[in-house]
Amino acid sequence: MSSTYGENLRITIFGQSHSPAIGVTIEGLPAGAELDLDALQRFLDRRAPGKNAHSTARKEADAPEILSGLNGSRICGAPFTAIIRNSDTRPGDYENLRLVPRPGHADFTAQAKFGGAQDVSGGGHFSGRLTAPLCIAGGICKQLLEKRGVSVFARAAQIGGVPDEGALTASVAEKPFPTVSDAAGEKMQARIAEAKSQGDSVGGIVECAISGLPAGVGDPMFGGMENRIAQIVFGIPAVKGLEFGAGFSLSEMTGSEANDPFTIENGKVTTETNRCGGILGGITTGAPLTFRAAVKPTPSIAKPQKSVNLETMQQAPLIVQGRHDPCIVPRAVPVVEAAAAIAVLDALMGKDKESAWT
Amino acid sequence: MSSTYGENLRITIFGQSHSPAIGVTIEGLPAGAELDLDALQRFLDRRAPGKNAHSTARKEADAPEILSGLNGSRICGAPFTAIIRNSDTRPGDYENLRLVPRPGHADFTAQAKFGGAQDVSGGGHFSGRLTAPLCIAGGICKQLLEKRGVSVFARAAQIGGVPDEGALTASVAEKPFPTVSDAAGEKMQARIAEAKSQGDSVGGIVECAISGLPAGVGDPMFGGMENRIAQIVFGIPAVKGLEFGAGFSLSEMTGSEANDPFTIENGKVTTETNRCGGILGGITTGAPLTFRAAVKPTPSIAKPQKSVNLETMQQAPLIVQGRHDPCIVPRAVPVVEAAAAIAVLDALMGKDKESAWT
Amino acid sequence: MSSTYGENLRITIFGQSHSPAIGVTIEGLPAGAELDLDALQRFLDRRAPGKNAHSTARKEADAPEILSGLNGSRICGAPFTAIIRNSDTRPGDYENLRLVPRPGHADFTAQAKFGGAQDVSGGGHFSGRLTAPLCIAGGICKQLLEKRGVSVFARAAQIGGVPDEGALTASVAEKPFPTVSDAAGEKMQARIAEAKSQGDSVGGIVECAISGLPAGVGDPMFGGMENRIAQIVFGIPAVKGLEFGAGFSLSEMTGSEANDPFTIENGKVTTETNRCGGILGGITTGAPLTFRAAVKPTPSIAKPQKSVNLETMQQAPLIVQGRHDPCIVPRAVPVVEAAAAIAVLDALMGKDKESAWT
Amino acid sequence: MSSTYGENLRITIFGQSHSPAIGVTIEGLPAGAELDLDALQRFLDRRAPGKNAHSTARKEADAPEILSGLNGSRICGAPFTAIIRNSDTRPGDYENLRLVPRPGHADFTAQAKFGGAQDVSGGGHFSGRLTAPLCIAGGICKQLLEKRGVSVFARAAQIGGVPDEGALTASVAEKPFPTVSDAAGEKMQARIAEAKSQGDSVGGIVECAISGLPAGVGDPMFGGMENRIAQIVFGIPAVKGLEFGAGFSLSEMTGSEANDPFTIENGKVTTETNRCGGILGGITTGAPLTFRAAVKPTPSIAKPQKSVNLETMQQAPLIVQGRHDPCIVPRAVPVVEAAAAIAVLDALMGKDKESAWT
Repeated sequence: MSSTYGENLRITIFGQSHSPAIGVTIEGLPAGAELDLDALQRFLDRRAPGKNAHSTARKEADAPEILSGLNGSRICGAPFTAIIRNSDTRPGDYENLRLVPRPGHADFTAQAKFGGAQDVSGGGHFSGRLTAPLCIAGGICKQLLEKRGVSVFARAAQIGGVPDEGALTASVAEKPFPTVSDAAGEKMQARIAEAKSQGDSVGGIVECAISGLPAGVGDPMFGGMENRIAQIVFGIPAVKGLEFGAGFSLSEMTGSEANDPFTIENGKVTTETNRCGGILGGITTGAPLTFRAAVKPTPSIAKPQKSVNLETMQQAPLIVQGRHDPCIVPRAVPVVEAAAAIAVLDALMGKDKESAWT
Repeated sequence: MSSTYGENLRITIFGQSHSPAIGVTIEGLPAGAELDLDALQRFLDRRAPGKNAHSTARKEADAPEILSGLNGSRICGAPFTAIIRNSDTRPGDYENLRLVPRPGHADFTAQAKFGGAQDVSGGGHFSGRLTAPLCIAGGICKQLLEKRGVSVFARAAQIGGVPDEGALTASVAEKPFPTVSDAAGEKMQARIAEAKSQGDSVGGIVECAISGLPAGVGDPMFGGMENRIAQIVFGIPAVKGLEFGAGFSLSEMTGSEANDPFTIENGKVTTETNRCGGILGGITTGAPLTFRAAVKPTPSIAKPQKSVNLETMQQAPLIVQGRHDPCIVPRAVPVVEAAAAIAVLDALMGKDKESAWT
Repeated sequence: MSSTYGENLRITIFGQSHSPAIGVTIEGLPAGAELDLDALQRFLDRRAPGKNAHSTARKEADAPEILSGLNGSRICGAPFTAIIRNSDTRPGDYENLRLVPRPGHADFTAQAKFGGAQDVSGGGHFSGRLTAPLCIAGGICKQLLEKRGVSVFARAAQIGGVPDEGALTASVAEKPFPTVSDAAGEKMQARIAEAKSQGDSVGGIVECAISGLPAGVGDPMFGGMENRIAQIVFGIPAVKGLEFGAGFSLSEMTGSEANDPFTIENGKVTTETNRCGGILGGITTGAPLTFRAAVKPTPSIAKPQKSVNLETMQQAPLIVQGRHDPCIVPRAVPVVEAAAAIAVLDALMGKDKESAWT
Repeated sequence: MSSTYGENLRITIFGQSHSPAIGVTIEGLPAGAELDLDALQRFLDRRAPGKNAHSTARKEADAPEILSGLNGSRICGAPFTAIIRNSDTRPGDYENLRLVPRPGHADFTAQAKFGGAQDVSGGGHFSGRLTAPLCIAGGICKQLLEKRGVSVFARAAQIGGVPDEGALTASVAEKPFPTVSDAAGEKMQARIAEAKSQGDSVGGIVECAISGLPAGVGDPMFGGMENRIAQIVFGIPAVKGLEFGAGFSLSEMTGSEANDPFTIENGKVTTETNRCGGILGGITTGAPLTFRAAVKPTPSIAKPQKSVNLETMQQAPLIVQGRHDPCIVPRAVPVVEAAAAIAVLDALMGKDKESAWT
C-alpha cells in the first residue's frame, strides 16, 4: 500500500493538507520502551513551518495528539496513532488548481489517477505537510535507535549550488541552519533570499549518516539497506535522486579505487575507507551508513508559468497563489533523518528476529 | 521478505551461485496471456555470460526450465516457476573467501548476518548470477507490458568515464554493445580492455526509459514510481545510485528552470520538457519514465588487495581467484530493463484494480 | 501486522478501551465513490452499546469523526481515517486486573506478550470496543459492495442453546433483535435475562450470508474465500469456531451426499444445493457465500471465579467489576457482517485487477 | 498473494498436478540450523499416496530435490526451494473436466476465475498433490520447533461418523493409522472400505495439538493464533470448518462453564481446564494449543453425478475417471500438522523479534 512502509514495524500516514487532521499509525513498536515526548516535540520543531524568513508563513502548532499505543509514556504494544489538527487552512487559495495544474506538482497526475474526487486543496495527500506525521514516526524510531546506540543525523550538503564544507557530524542537527560550515550556511541563505526575491526557488542535497549500527543489518536483494532507505526516502516530496557512499562517482572509478580495504581496528573488522557507504550486498559493514538525497527546487514559485486548462484543453497561464517555501532543503533535513530512522529500525528488528537462533 | 518484490504480482528469487539451481517464482501473473518463449530466451541471452571478450569466461546455457504456471505457453493463473541449473560450478575456487573476505563484496557482511552457515561459494545468494532469474521475471513482464503498448529499454550511458552520445531509443537494446553511438561504444570497450589488462575493473551508468505508459500510474508516498523502481533496482548487485529525470542536476536548478511546463499535444496533456522523468508526486505524467542507475566497478579484480583473516583477526593480503567480468555494465543493461519492467507492470496492475470503479 | 487486514485494500485498527480514541485507517478505497454517512451511522448504531437491557450500560455516542480520505462525502483516494473518542472511561475499575487476570480474557496472555507496559485497562487493545472501528470499515465496504450488487447480512442463529428458525434473509438485519423467528428471538432474550440474573453469560452462533457475488472471486490455496474470511472473523473477540456451508456436518456425510450437483438456471451455471457455502477451491461459485461463527459466552461474569495473583503467584479469588454484556451475540451480528464485507470487497478488488487482461 | 503464507517466514507453493514439477520456496528460515533430511523424508512419507489400500493408486516417490537454501544440510539464510517432479502423470484422464466440471471440485470456479487458460488437468494448482510441498515446508518447521521444545501432532478424530477414543498424544503420529484407539481405527477403515465399495467417499475430522509453546505467542486481532492457523489450514483442500479448544460447543455453554480458571502449577501460571484451546485474545496461554478441522468427503467419487456442459450449457451426466482416495483424512493428518507447524513457527519468530527489547 502506498502510504504504508515497513516490514517489522509498519507506519501508515494519513491525511490531506486541508482535511480535519493528518497523522500516523505505527504498528509493531516494541512494548516496554519509555518515550521522551518533549524530545519528540523538539525534533518535530526542527521541521515545523514558519520558523524563519525562508520558510512558508503558514503557522501550525504541529503538536501531535497521541490517541493510542502508549500507557503513560511507555509503548504498550498496541498500534500507536498520533494526529495533528489542520487548524490554519485556506482552501480557497487552491480552487483553480483542479482546472489548471501547477507544473512540477502532483495536481495533474493525482487527477489522472484519482479523477475528479481527488482532494486538490493544498496538494491533498501529496502535500509536504504530510512529512509532519512522518517525523512523528521517525522521531520515535530515532529514540528507540538511540537506546541501541544508533544515531541518525543529517545536514544540508548543498543548496542552490552552494556546497557545505567539512565532514558531517551528529552535532549539526542542533544548529538553527543545518550545515557544518556556518559560512557556507550564510551563503546558502543568501542564495535562498535571492531566489525568493526573484519569485523563484532553489533545491539542494541532504546528506545523512547513521552511526553505531552493528555489521549484519539488512537483507540480500530487495531487502538491502539501499532498497529499504530508497523506498522511504523517495516518499519525501521533491526527492529525485539518491546515492549511497560515493554513489554516482563510483561509476567513474576503477575497482581498485572503489573497493574499501578491510582492516582491523580495536579488535573489530572495519574498512579503511567507506566509499560503499557502510553497505555491502545490502548489509551493513559496521561503518557509518551514508547517503545523499537530491531535492528538486520547490515547484511552487511566484513567477508566471505555462500550464493548461484541463476543461478547455487550452494553454493557460498560471500564477501560483498561497504561501510557499523558496527552499525546503533545511526543513527536509529532519525529514530525511526521520525516514532513515524508520528504515534502519525496521531492518534492525529483522536482525533481532534472527538472533534468537544463533 | 528480502528476495521478494511486488504488490500486485510478486516475484521471489531463489538460489545460490553454486547450489543445484537458481530460479524465480512469480505469483499474480494475469491468466490467459500467451508467452513467446523464444523471445524470452533472446532477452535472457542479452544478459548471459561468456558472450564476448569482456565478460566472465564461465559458460552456462542459462536456458530456463519452466516448472509451473503455464498451460502450453499460456499463463494459467497458478504461480509460475522457472529454474536454471548450475552446471558449471567450481566451488573450490572460493573456499578461502570464508576466512579472507573480498573487499567490495558481501563475503564479510553476509557472514556478519548469517554466521558460519552462509554459503560463501561464488557469492552465494549475493552472486550476480542471481540476476538471471530476475531477467526471466522481467522478460515476461516486458512481454505483458508490450501487449499494453508499453516499452522498456536501456543503454550503457557511461562506462569507465566514457559517456554515450545521443538520445536513448528503443532500438539500442538490439545492438551487441548497448550504446546509441557506436563510436562511444568502441571507446568504452577500449576502456574495459585497458582495465582488464591492468587486472582492474570499471563501472558506469545504465540509463533506462519506459515509454507508452498512460498518465496516472503509481501511488502517492511510498508507492510512487520512484520508490517502486528504487526498491527493485537497488537489488541489482553493484547499483549504488539512482536518479529520475534530471535527478541530481535538479538540485542545482531554480524552480523556474526545473518545472516542466504543461502543454497540449494531439489533444492530450503533456509536458514541454521532461526533467521530472515522467513522474510527479510518484505518479506517471504520460511522458516517458526515465532514470539512471550508477553501477560501481566489479569488486572482483586480479590486483592484490588488502583484507583481513577473520579467524586470526590479522591483516591478510588477498588475490581473488576465479573468472570475473572487468565490467558488468553491458550485461546490467537488460537486468535494469528487467527490474524496471517488473516494477512498472506491478504498478500498472494496481491502476487496473482501481479502474473498475470509475 | 496483527491489527491490519487486507491485500487490495488494507484496514488498520488502533486504540485501546481507555486511550483517548479508537479508530481505523483504510488504504486502497477506490476513489470516486460517494459514501452515505447517515447509512454508515445507522449501521454503527446496530453495534453500539447501551441499546437495550441486555447490553453493557456504558454509553458512547460512537459517532465517528472522519479525519481524512474524503472530499466532501466522496472517497478521494488518500487513506481514510476515522476515530471515535473514548469519553466515558473509568480506568479505576480495572486496576486490579494487572495483578489478578480474568479467566477467559486476554489479561494474562497480553502481559505474557507485552510485559508490564500492557494497557490492561478495559481490556486495552483486546477490548470488544475495538469492533466499533471494524464496523466503520465494514460499513463502508458494505456500501461499496452494494454498488456492485453484493449484499452482506447475518443473524443470531443460536443463543444460549436456543436456535433461530427459518432461512436467513437480508431483511433480518433491520430487526431490533436479529433473528428470523421472533418467537425464537424472545426465547433467546429470556435465556440471556436468566443468565444475567445468575451473574452469568451465554454465547451463541452468528450466521452470515453474502449474496450477489459473481463466480470466480477468491484465490487458490491461502487466498481462498474461507481463508480470507477466517483471518478476519477470528479477529472478532470471542469467536472460537468457523464453518462454511454445511461445515462440520460435511465431515459425517458421504461424497454423494456432500457434493452439490451443477445445474443451469436462467442460463447460468449454479448448484442445486449449496452445502459448499458458495465456495469451491476457495473461489466463489456464484451461489450465496455462507458461514457460521461460534461465539463463546462473555468471559466477564459477575459470579466469583478462580484466578491467580501474578505477583505473589498464589491462587486468588476474583470478582470482576465493571459493566459487561451477559451476551454479545446480538451485537456481534453487525460486526460479523462488517468483517465479511471487508474480506469480500478485498477479494473482489483482486478479481478486478485480473479482469483488465481478459 | 494466494499461494504464499507467512509474516516472519514466508512459504510460496507452486506447481500444478501435471506440470513438470511442484515445489515450495521458503524465505526467512533462520540461518545456522541443521536439518535432518532423513526425518524430513519420513515425515513426507506419512502423507505420500499409494501407502495403503485406502489411498489413491498413483505412485510418486515424493522425494524432494532441494535446489537452494542449504549449505550442506545447514540452513544458509538464502531462500530455500525444493521441488518434486511429477513423473507419473496421465493428463488424458482429465480432458473432459474442462467441459463438464466435477461437483465439489474447483473445476468450475477455477475457470470462472482464470478462464480457458486454467490448467484443469488433475485439478491443476488446486490438486491435493500440492499438499506435498506444504509438507516439505511444514516438516522443516516442525524440526525447528522441536529445537525450541515445541511439538506438533495430530490424529484422525473422526472418519465417516466413527469417532476416535481417548486423548490425543504425540505418539499417535507414528502409527500407520493415526488414531489413539486401534479399535476405532479399525472401524474407520471398515467405513472407508464400505464407502469405496459403493463408489463413494467419506470425510472426517483432524484434531491437532501443539505442546511446549510458551505463553505470549501470537498477536492481537487479525494476528491471533486462531487467525494465523485458520489462514493456512483452510488452504488444505476439503477443510470446511475449524474450531479451537471446545470450539462450537462453547457457543452452548455459560460463561462460568466456559472460562478456564487460572491456577499455579510448578511455579507457573496455567489453567485448570483448556476449553480455550490454549489461546486467549489470540495469544498463547502456555497450555497446549488445540484445534479441530472438518474435512469434507473426497468429491471425486465413482458414482454417476449430475453436472453441466459449459459449452452447450446443458445438463450433462458425469462419471469421474482417474484414481482417487475414498477418504483423505488419514493423509490429511500430517498435512494439518505441517500447516500448524508453519503458522506456529511464524508466530514464534514474531515473539523473538520483540524479545530483543525486554
